[in-house]
Amino acid sequence: MSDKIRVTVWNEFRHEKENEKIRGVYPEGIHGAIAAFLKANADMEVRTATLDEPEHGLTQAVLNETDTLIWWGHKAHKDVQDAIVDRVQQRVLSGMGLICLHSAHFSKIFRRMMGSNCGLKWREIGEKERLWNLDPSHPITQGIGDYIEIAHEEMYGEPFGIPTPEHLLFVSWFAGGEVFRSGATWQRGMGRIFYFRPGHETFPVYYQKEIQTVITNAVRWAKARVSIDTNKGVHVKAPLEKVEVYKP
Amino acid sequence: MSDKIRVTVWNEFRHEKENEKIRGVYPEGIHGAIAAFLKANADMEVRTATLDEPEHGLTQAVLNETDTLIWWGHKAHKDVQDAIVDRVQQRVLSGMGLICLHSAHFSKIFRRMMGSNCGLKWREIGEKERLWNLDPSHPITQGIGDYIEIAHEEMYGEPFGIPTPEHLLFVSWFAGGEVFRSGATWQRGMGRIFYFRPGHETFPVYYQKEIQTVITNAVRWAKARVSIDTNKGVHVKAPLEKVEVYKP
Amino acid sequence: MSDKIRVTVWNEFRHEKENEKIRGVYPEGIHGAIAAFLKANADMEVRTATLDEPEHGLTQAVLNETDTLIWWGHKAHKDVQDAIVDRVQQRVLSGMGLICLHSAHFSKIFRRMMGSNCGLKWREIGEKERLWNLDPSHPITQGIGDYIEIAHEEMYGEPFGIPTPEHLLFVSWFAGGEVFRSGATWQRGMGRIFYFRPGHETFPVYYQKEIQTVITNAVRWAKARVSIDTNKGVHVKAPLEKVEVYKP
Amino acid sequence: MSDKIRVTVWNEFRHEKENEKIRGVYPEGIHGAIAAFLKANADMEVRTATLDEPEHGLTQAVLNETDTLIWWGHKAHKDVQDAIVDRVQQRVLSGMGLICLHSAHFSKIFRRMMGSNCGLKWREIGEKERLWNLDPSHPITQGIGDYIEIAHEEMYGEPFGIPTPEHLLFVSWFAGGEVFRSGATWQRGMGRIFYFRPGHETFPVYYQKEIQTVITNAVRWAKARVSIDTNKGVHVKAPLEKVEVYKP
Repeated sequence: MSDKIRVTVWNEFRHEKENEKIRGVYPEGIHGAIAAFLKANADMEVRTATLDEPEHGLTQAVLNETDTLIWWGHKAHKDVQDAIVDRVQQRVLSGMGLICLHSAHFSKIFRRMMGSNCGLKWREIGEKERLWNLDPSHPITQGIGDYIEIAHEEMYGEPFGIPTPEHLLFVSWFAGGEVFRSGATWQRGMGRIFYFRPGHETFPVYYQKEIQTVITNAVRWAKARVSIDTNKGVHVKAPLEKVEVYKP
Repeated sequence: MSDKIRVTVWNEFRHEKENEKIRGVYPEGIHGAIAAFLKANADMEVRTATLDEPEHGLTQAVLNETDTLIWWGHKAHKDVQDAIVDRVQQRVLSGMGLICLHSAHFSKIFRRMMGSNCGLKWREIGEKERLWNLDPSHPITQGIGDYIEIAHEEMYGEPFGIPTPEHLLFVSWFAGGEVFRSGATWQRGMGRIFYFRPGHETFPVYYQKEIQTVITNAVRWAKARVSIDTNKGVHVKAPLEKVEVYKP
Repeated sequence: MSDKIRVTVWNEFRHEKENEKIRGVYPEGIHGAIAAFLKANADMEVRTATLDEPEHGLTQAVLNETDTLIWWGHKAHKDVQDAIVDRVQQRVLSGMGLICLHSAHFSKIFRRMMGSNCGLKWREIGEKERLWNLDPSHPITQGIGDYIEIAHEEMYGEPFGIPTPEHLLFVSWFAGGEVFRSGATWQRGMGRIFYFRPGHETFPVYYQKEIQTVITNAVRWAKARVSIDTNKGVHVKAPLEKVEVYKP
Repeated sequence: MSDKIRVTVWNEFRHEKENEKIRGVYPEGIHGAIAAFLKANADMEVRTATLDEPEHGLTQAVLNETDTLIWWGHKAHKDVQDAIVDRVQQRVLSGMGLICLHSAHFSKIFRRMMGSNCGLKWREIGEKERLWNLDPSHPITQGIGDYIEIAHEEMYGEPFGIPTPEHLLFVSWFAGGEVFRSGATWQRGMGRIFYFRPGHETFPVYYQKEIQTVITNAVRWAKARVSIDTNKGVHVKAPLEKVEVYKP
């Protein structure tokens, strides 16, 4: 068995096929661009999966062999089958890491893990974004200085409908006047979850070095550390201490 | 409009009908017993709802008029329709309080709000439970001393498959040797959630004064404070600051 | 005994005496301006205390009769005696609420309660600040809409050296390009703590209606709910359960 | 420079010298016993320091060369100089890991980092303790099963006067009827903190394999990852964005 981190990059992969401009930015799909920079890491084995493959490319076997799953989607969230969402959720709860990028804030899987709607404000005028690094000691922010600047991005604004993050790593400043919790972590069951905001389909954000660094760090941070089925109760018939059974 | 807290007590209400012994303990159903002690509070308006009513008694109108919803179920979780779970979840996210009791740890609505499986260990020998009060300053623990003792209870043991509570209020000691996080709170969207462990159907736990005090306190603590639909994004077309639209 | 919330507004009150421009903005001192708008609330009894009074105006008797303490200081933090800081800390831990404003991030009492240095970036060019409301359901944000705008303020920027807040209520956007966690809550012992950023001495921020609303809400939210001395251990000689004493 | 984790084990080391029975259990002192099992790890460099050495053995140089500091003390907390506590606190805030064991709950350094009194209940009858593992995915609980049993221990009981832990890893069951949050983590500044309850001076707890495993895991988890001085503000004179200086 390999010691490498097994990464699966999932993408909706529809907009790139339908829209020439988006295909121009990401000719191999957004999953292709993300997989490409991850593959440069000697400690990672990378595969991709997309919505229109059978079972969305996420068979039980694929999930069982995935240590960190990256998720990108924006216009076809409703086409993801609930049974596959259930399967991904169970695999996260048993230990797999999950990284949700950008518009995946509205994906079924992210909302499922959070228990809330994960709504936000948005605007598409290609304004400047500056992500401030709130915790320079966290594994995910290593190699990043005080902030990351993105010249042109879609804006996301607060309030962001998420549970209080366990660690809040990035907060964004937008030229148009808003702020956003752009990088945040949670644990659910045995699995680690990271949400990272950047990445609109019409901007070449995933080619930017610092963004690649954050995602690469997050893959390592989130990777499955155990594999424990949590979807059951455990009947402990005998007590550990001497106790008489009560007969009312 | 009334200023009273509008409480709806929901119960699966099957076991009491099928089993004479349980009916003996709770002749009006568990919901009946809980509603009875809540009705003694001048600041509350209490109604009940059960699984086998149309729409499980939880129409949109009922939910809209509910400030705190109490949930009890244990053997028919799967019979609760997903569409009703969606509806309850949205009402919690918009502000309604939710109190899940005992075996409701495995209810669809609690698992939905938590995003995790909420599994645990259990044993039914009627052993002693002692719930330790971890935060005597919290509104939910007022009127309770150092601990609550229950002479005979079902045991629940760790690990309990929940996200880290925002406030952990009670931890139980069991005679048989286990411990359990028995009282805990979370916020999801605008809604407050409280899980409280005691309450097995074969023991008269809901007649115990301290248990009634905790549930009564929790109804007041959890009640809806706002009503805000969080199930949508907000498109903010114009920036607040002067920013030129970017044309790549 | 009164049912009113007993508020003590503490101010360093040096800069107003030394500097004509600052005295021009706050002729009665910053404490005077804050006390003035709080006194308009029928449910509050307000007094003030300042650094150069005996015991900084914070005798044990004053603290015992205080439900919420507001703290403002910026250039004489080191002149606050450690013994008084100890006394205030113990009163917070036993239940008194504490609201630290603006440059009180560097006060001895705030650093003591946080356990960390509470450092930050700053700049004084009178730029625009916009505080985004992250939780419209929280008691402290009631009556505030999506955001508060302050025309001219000192800038504070991340990283802010605080422990992860229990609730993060406001994040600020600054015209100069930074962001800041401007409103946040913690509990320590039995006491509730709120940090709120606005309020530089050279800008009339405490005359702004929304800022007054937030501070007024926070006084109610933070007020002492119990009074429990936590500064001791408790020797429980006899076990609650039958256990033989072990003689090795 | 070595790649090893540099561990310093600090012990009050008075009781062992005064009391024959305690010396019988820990002839090399508690620090000696802990250092001994840590030294068996090839990735660690271990030294010790004690109260009665100059500067308590914790010179600035020693702290600068320490990645994880372990702290044990129980009857001479007040003899630790405040200036040394300040120094240790600053080193934790800049990145050093801190592990506080057993009665170090009442040490100056732990109370300083927590901001609260860290009080608890206690009893010394040598009763059984069982520490339940709440998170089998956490690095600190690896190699531990469902629980750890200690045949004879001092009891610590709730309420424990700590801020809400970021991760709660162990909860103890005691034969006498109490429970306790026995393993918990926090971050302060850049530093990671772990409190672990077991270890009374009259019981051979630090010779128990599972206890050694937890402490060994914790040394690796807590080790300094960065070294960043957080004890200052940063004056950012020029804004990142074009903003005119305001002249009131």
